[in-house]
Amino acid sequence: MAPPINVAIPAHLTPAGISGNKLLGYERAKASFDSQDMAEYIHGKAYLEEQTYLLNVLANDPAFDKSSMHYLGRTERFRAAMKKDKRLAQLQREHNWSDKTSRHADFLCDSPAPFGLHKSMFITTLRNMGTDEQREAFLKPAEAYQIIGCYAQTELGHGSNVQGLETTCTYEEETKEFIVHSPTLTSAKWWIGGLGRSADHAIVMAQLILKGKSYGPHPIIVQIRDIKTREPLPGRIIADIGPKAGYNTTDNGTLLLDQVRVPHMNLLARFAKVDPDTAAYVPPKNSALTYGTLTWVRANIVQDARTVLMRATTIAIRYCAIRRQFGDRDAPKFDEHGRPVETQVLDYTMVQYRLLPILAQAFAFHYTAKFMYNLYHANEDNVQSGDLSLLADTHASSSGLKSLVTLTAASAIEECRRACGGHGYSMSSGLPSFYADYLPNVTWEGDSYMLTQQCTRYLFKMMRQLKTNPATAEKNVTTEYMARYLAKKDDRADIKYIGDLYSPVFFIKSFAHRAAYLVEQTLQLRDNARRSWNSLLVEMYRCSKAHSQFLVVRNFSLAILNDDELNRKPALRQIMQRLYLLFCCYTMEQEAADFLTSGFIDGRQAHIVSNKVQELLAEVRPQAVPLVDAFALPDFLLNSSLGRADGMAYEALFDFAVREPINSTRWDVNIDDLDAADMDEIPRASKL
Amino acid sequence: MAPPINVAIPAHLTPAGISGNKLLGYERAKASFDSQDMAEYIHGKAYLEEQTYLLNVLANDPAFDKSSMHYLGRTERFRAAMKKDKRLAQLQREHNWSDKTSRHADFLCDSPAPFGLHKSMFITTLRNMGTDEQREAFLKPAEAYQIIGCYAQTELGHGSNVQGLETTCTYEEETKEFIVHSPTLTSAKWWIGGLGRSADHAIVMAQLILKGKSYGPHPIIVQIRDIKTREPLPGRIIADIGPKAGYNTTDNGTLLLDQVRVPHMNLLARFAKVDPDTAAYVPPKNSALTYGTLTWVRANIVQDARTVLMRATTIAIRYCAIRRQFGDRDAPKFDEHGRPVETQVLDYTMVQYRLLPILAQAFAFHYTAKFMYNLYHANEDNVQSGDLSLLADTHASSSGLKSLVTLTAASAIEECRRACGGHGYSMSSGLPSFYADYLPNVTWEGDSYMLTQQCTRYLFKMMRQLKTNPATAEKNVTTEYMARYLAKKDDRADIKYIGDLYSPVFFIKSFAHRAAYLVEQTLQLRDNARRSWNSLLVEMYRCSKAHSQFLVVRNFSLAILNDDELNRKPALRQIMQRLYLLFCCYTMEQEAADFLTSGFIDGRQAHIVSNKVQELLAEVRPQAVPLVDAFALPDFLLNSSLGRADGMAYEALFDFAVREPINSTRWDVNIDDLDAADMDEIPRASKL
Repeated sequence: MAPPINVAIPAHLTPAGISGNKLLGYERAKASFDSQDMAEYIHGKAYLEEQTYLLNVLANDPAFDKSSMHYLGRTERFRAAMKKDKRLAQLQREHNWSDKTSRHADFLCDSPAPFGLHKSMFITTLRNMGTDEQREAFLKPAEAYQIIGCYAQTELGHGSNVQGLETTCTYEEETKEFIVHSPTLTSAKWWIGGLGRSADHAIVMAQLILKGKSYGPHPIIVQIRDIKTREPLPGRIIADIGPKAGYNTTDNGTLLLDQVRVPHMNLLARFAKVDPDTAAYVPPKNSALTYGTLTWVRANIVQDARTVLMRATTIAIRYCAIRRQFGDRDAPKFDEHGRPVETQVLDYTMVQYRLLPILAQAFAFHYTAKFMYNLYHANEDNVQSGDLSLLADTHASSSGLKSLVTLTAASAIEECRRACGGHGYSMSSGLPSFYADYLPNVTWEGDSYMLTQQCTRYLFKMMRQLKTNPATAEKNVTTEYMARYLAKKDDRADIKYIGDLYSPVFFIKSFAHRAAYLVEQTLQLRDNARRSWNSLLVEMYRCSKAHSQFLVVRNFSLAILNDDELNRKPALRQIMQRLYLLFCCYTMEQEAADFLTSGFIDGRQAHIVSNKVQELLAEVRPQAVPLVDAFALPDFLLNSSLGRADGMAYEALFDFAVREPINSTRWDVNIDDLDAADMDEIPRASKL
Repeated sequence: MAPPINVAIPAHLTPAGISGNKLLGYERAKASFDSQDMAEYIHGKAYLEEQTYLLNVLANDPAFDKSSMHYLGRTERFRAAMKKDKRLAQLQREHNWSDKTSRHADFLCDSPAPFGLHKSMFITTLRNMGTDEQREAFLKPAEAYQIIGCYAQTELGHGSNVQGLETTCTYEEETKEFIVHSPTLTSAKWWIGGLGRSADHAIVMAQLILKGKSYGPHPIIVQIRDIKTREPLPGRIIADIGPKAGYNTTDNGTLLLDQVRVPHMNLLARFAKVDPDTAAYVPPKNSALTYGTLTWVRANIVQDARTVLMRATTIAIRYCAIRRQFGDRDAPKFDEHGRPVETQVLDYTMVQYRLLPILAQAFAFHYTAKFMYNLYHANEDNVQSGDLSLLADTHASSSGLKSLVTLTAASAIEECRRACGGHGYSMSSGLPSFYADYLPNVTWEGDSYMLTQQCTRYLFKMMRQLKTNPATAEKNVTTEYMARYLAKKDDRADIKYIGDLYSPVFFIKSFAHRAAYLVEQTLQLRDNARRSWNSLLVEMYRCSKAHSQFLVVRNFSLAILNDDELNRKPALRQIMQRLYLLFCCYTMEQEAADFLTSGFIDGRQAHIVSNKVQELLAEVRPQAVPLVDAFALPDFLLNSSLGRADGMAYEALFDFAVREPINSTRWDVNIDDLDAADMDEIPRASKL
């Protein structure tokens, strides 16, 4: 690649007015709390120390250099991602990193890559569902990167509906082999991360068929490529599925199997088994254990969504503190030297209204992620001792929360990008690629629109129990709020003035009332009006959202009321209290239609809530930069010209421009030279 | 590029179940109207004939081939876009196409490209603002592509705020030259389409300085590159600004000018002038004429938004009619042969609720685009004869509508993409690149969040007039509805049953009442409570949105009531009536909080509106595919595996996969071969 021609930043030019660096300095000086204290409260000291250690290891290693990523075509980006994953594997081996430390390093590198699914789904599934023999045969070489695996579930024609998978896995008693087969085009495995170019083994989810009878989808290990030559083995058709909105550093692939034979031992058999001699099916003893993994995955999704909000707001809030545009209509247009006065964009209430509630949501999701991890551990302990009481509630809440947090996080990134004005559109802002890579979260692990049925089905069940026999109803957070609602349906908000909006008890009560109201209304349509399930999907979505928002409000409220660590630190508690109120009031304002329809609030009270939001925005505004500093997301992760901790946004944008490869070519614009674009390709005759 | 290895679609495999082609056939058989009739009603026969003619010219010309675009890196895509623009210019010359026909051809090619801003802003500005002499010198060679221009307004530090531009243009009487200069880094022209690599001339917006006094931003022509060598001329620093979320086929660029001298005649002087000898400033006689162009640009934005909704829904609705997933909970799980029965995704009410209102919005925006063009022409005629009565209303409405339609269209594309499930994420769906290329509309031509102030400022003015002296208030659509509101503030919706929701008069009245209510409430905060302008930006945004939605409802209502062409075609009118009601009821449901807060509707009525939406979704569902067929968007434009008119989505996805270039390389996954990714690069020792 030739060096850029004729382009360099003139050294004598600087940005007009106060520098970004100084502006961020002023912002930081306004802090009412210590950002480092807050960072430790959020992440814990150990995590921050690990981050410092990892940044030292990663930041100067060329395998993790991010400076050129946006200029590369897909092949080159894939090559770089492969190198990154190999180097991470080397470092893990060299430093004997735990899985957790490795994941932390991978998070900082921030690039989906070829070994991603090998490290997560392939290895995890072998650990959870493999017998000792299978772990010895597959898990050990997988952990040493001697084999590379992928997890092949989704098919071209089947995403969410696992039961509908078409791939078959038929046992043949004579040979003691399974025959794995793709009967149609739509049965092609599709979207499988790492399959396209990297993996040599796949865990294939296939319909298990024994003596002509189907037993539903089961996981079976199929070797797909030769370990040395990397050529597909006979009977396997494999390809990368081509470019996507994001994730282009991962080789999502397709796989068609033509009567491929694998030995009996390849069916993952820790739970369900097939007797090799009689072909009899031995069902799993306790299928509840597999739900635990799902909760863990969804707790991670909530935690990730929290981090997404932190990252998007870090970039947007820092840049909106640097960017100035227009003068305030009510303020003087010129300073005492006659120079135009422009307002920091973050001072516009419209910008505050778009960004600061996302900041508050980040904290709200933080507490709900903690709640989900606690629930996961409590449920795991219970299930081990045969107690399944938490299972249904855990499953329902995690379904509803998965939907809520992924939809919130995806739109938050885009909102933050737009708040950066035109420069948010540049890849150098770090936001477009971040958005594109995050988007699959809305669709995978249960489509965030359809998944809400699972939550509401459980809410229906709880409401029905309470209505028929409250005494015997299961006791948990859901039934508690529904019982309270049924006892006092005509409960009304008791707020008269803006000052009445302060109590966690009020917000818990409000969001509980709204959720229970929606569930009751929708259940009546189902049970009394006998409406079809399908005709109620929109209402069910609303119930799930209301329940999930209640959970988030409740978890944040309980932290404000009871978190000892927070209560010991008045400066942190004070700003957290404001963020809490902002989150609650903003959410209530956004969802005002529900609160008004149920009669819980009236039009006058809706105005009070809106006014309170404005009041809180003004209170949180001066703390915005210190708060995003407290998220402690390093520049290495952000990789953003606009979000840099030093505020040198305009210099970074210029630097990004001059490194663009098309600047090294002079382009021919003569419309009669159709195929000549580069000046070096212009026919001699038409040259000077 | 080597051919893909080992990959081909096995000929004997077909998608499971009923083919996409047949499914779309069933859908088309359900049509209650003729799609061709509807297409002619929407687009006019002439437009459709021109489209057929253009497709014949374009579809087989290799310069317009889209099949490889998603596999190319930026340099190659830019090269292809340059070729496309050159070939279009050749065809225009060859066939003597009008500008309108050329734009139609460019629309079908659907790729932002290096000459885009040359053809639009550069040439248009020369036409509108150039003197005869300037047109001769610059416009003629520009139209013949002998010079290539760009329009350099935005700066690194200044987007929306044109008055704040830093570039200066200082007149020197001795030499009769202007000195154009970039005083700071933030004054660098930035985002300028075509500047980075293509343009040799720029219309630079710069602060005009005469005898030390500033006269605000004025346009001046600066030659920036040598026409033959394409090298920047002395004192110009030029670069492409690097990759963006979309628009990577356009060379958005930056320009720094170091005391660049241009002759007096380069200042565009049809309106404002500078006396060459005395350096006296001659202001424009009538600045109102320049507003006309703005209205025309915004009418185009409304029309484009309409087409965006048509295109996004065409892809999503066709694919959701093909895609099947899960069985309906209330329906049998297996057919009579024991095969699982899966539901067309479009039959799920949740999917209908996400897609069909967008379909209805497309029609709503269609009528509002017509309204805007009419307004533009009426206003142009008026202004020519010195009548400025339409000017303020036109400016306000077009500001509000620009905000509303761009925000709606951007989120509609993403909603449609998500409704396609995982495959919407593939570039082959045509949706991710479409979204990325559309996004700048939210930011440019006035940021869609900040621009709403311009609309509401006017609404305030009208409301104040009515309150102080209704007799002398200007007469127009705004004052009409506000006067009605002031006369009957406690007007309430008179609906008791779902059947009451049918009358255009009701919806006009409802949306007018809501808009006027919000304006009055907000104006009280400004005038009575003396709240600062900045503290009311969120409320002003809501006023502008409500006013704009009123306009859209009104324009659609008037078509339903009065459009003769529609009334002559009962089959079209019947489905249009349903789309109309769906649009109105859905919008009312989405904005229910406003209607409830004002007391115009109560909770019970909100439920009735929601139920009506469900009823209308069921009525529109069978017509969904025929309706998107009527949009008459050809496969050549859509370039979408999922949206193909023939329904062969799965075959197209497979075809897209096997053509991915990384499939032609065998990748080395050995973690100890850090730099070797391609098998051909593996050191001999580690090979087999």
